Amino acid sequence: MPVDRNSPIGVFDSGIGGLTVVREIMRNLPSESIVYFGDTARVPYGSKSAETITRYSEQICRFLIGKQVKAVVVACNTASAFALEAVQKEFSIPIIGVIRAGAEVAASSTRNGRIGIIGTEGTIGSGIHASFLKKLDPKIEVIGKACPLFVPLAEEGWTHDPVTEEVARRYLAELKSQNIDTLILGCTHYPLLRSTIRKVMGEGVQLVNPAYETALELKQLLKERNLECEADPQAEPEYRFYVSDLADKFRHFANTILPYDVPLTKKINIERY
Amino acid sequence: MPVDRNSPIGVFDSGIGGLTVVREIMRNLPSESIVYFGDTARVPYGSKSAETITRYSEQICRFLIGKQVKAVVVACNTASAFALEAVQKEFSIPIIGVIRAGAEVAASSTRNGRIGIIGTEGTIGSGIHASFLKKLDPKIEVIGKACPLFVPLAEEGWTHDPVTEEVARRYLAELKSQNIDTLILGCTHYPLLRSTIRKVMGEGVQLVNPAYETALELKQLLKERNLECEADPQAEPEYRFYVSDLADKFRHFANTILPYDVPLTKKINIERY
Repeated sequence: MPVDRNSPIGVFDSGIGGLTVVREIMRNLPSESIVYFGDTARVPYGSKSAETITRYSEQICRFLIGKQVKAVVVACNTASAFALEAVQKEFSIPIIGVIRAGAEVAASSTRNGRIGIIGTEGTIGSGIHASFLKKLDPKIEVIGKACPLFVPLAEEGWTHDPVTEEVARRYLAELKSQNIDTLILGCTHYPLLRSTIRKVMGEGVQLVNPAYETALELKQLLKERNLECEADPQAEPEYRFYVSDLADKFRHFANTILPYDVPLTKKINIERY
Repeated sequence: MPVDRNSPIGVFDSGIGGLTVVREIMRNLPSESIVYFGDTARVPYGSKSAETITRYSEQICRFLIGKQVKAVVVACNTASAFALEAVQKEFSIPIIGVIRAGAEVAASSTRNGRIGIIGTEGTIGSGIHASFLKKLDPKIEVIGKACPLFVPLAEEGWTHDPVTEEVARRYLAELKSQNIDTLILGCTHYPLLRSTIRKVMGEGVQLVNPAYETALELKQLLKERNLECEADPQAEPEYRFYVSDLADKFRHFANTILPYDVPLTKKINIERY
């Protein structure tokens, strides 16, 4: 069956973090419709195993493909690290993650070849950013640090807060002492803490937000495959939001992140897919 | 089929927190064998809905009953608040939660009738402790406060830490100003933060750990129903641990909490139950 270029793009994450990627897609591909899935019944992914995250990602891809999406963005670093290859093999539509684009920008913009990466335990433990960066330039030094409390702090709404700043100082001390000049925000929640991370790291360190880079990678991919939406550019794209739990709470949070009023979020049982 | 009184007791939690209950059962019912399940693939429960937590609890009870347990302890306050009645109706073996016993002790030990309760968003939002306490004594005033960062702080191992103390000061300020004399630790993780909570609340406030009270309630229940283990008191009870993810990490954590060396933890797919 040929893919309909006016079909929506599927985007998924463990919960709300992927909305920072949705925000960049809305800004940079304003004609494209989006179907988003947030796995709020099984969030977080960062402290779970590769096998479990792969099973969850497969279920979600089956759900999104059932919604006739033309491509999928895995808007979660942990799922991108653990499950991207598996879902790319299993499904025939194009699927991209959030890791490659950020790694490429970091590699091309570092001046001293010392790049830091922060993320969940799963993402950092996978070593996947280092592996991408070393392929781009074997001389690059990569220093990774897991920051398990950043996600709950962002979800608590303590984004500009002395406690968050103290936690950031502790987590980031090692990266600061290692003289990095570029830092990849390797978890889709972390852009929400950007100003605190910037304050702690100082102006001399460039922060890379893979959400923006991923939106540009998606734009390029759709162009290359003749999958760009042909709809009237004046027509409103359609945005649909699904979650596995707490639809109202998700919608409330989504409305604080997105430049768009989320009218409805639907709850589904993802374990059935 | 008659229940075998030498069968094990089933205990479950969203993850590791329920081990504080297992510890009390081991101490107070030393002959009883235990089958523990920690839902580490879907942890945490505290920020999820009643419907989802009930579905998860039903799956886990089916798993435990398949292991021939003679009774089940729901060693998670959120699951006790949301799902206890449903599983008690659905299954024929005795099932108890962790809320009633703690509420009874708090009610009998308060002098000024002002009781605080801390827990997850789900537990506090359910109002279940207040409802139990008001039934025991309608004059009791109950002040609840959700502390969403306590679980990730305990799991990060920051149990004696200035950051945790600052978070505790902020969460507990309202309870302190309300002149409570008794505080229920309404989440099975919180006994791990007991010394920090004590430091912030001061010696004048009695902390109630429902894990201990629940072990005593279980002992009484087994006695009343003639379900106490008849094995040779010198014989070693059998302890088995199952999780839905990251068995090794769980085992490592369990070994820091339990007065017993956990030799093996087995991973199972709970979604199939």
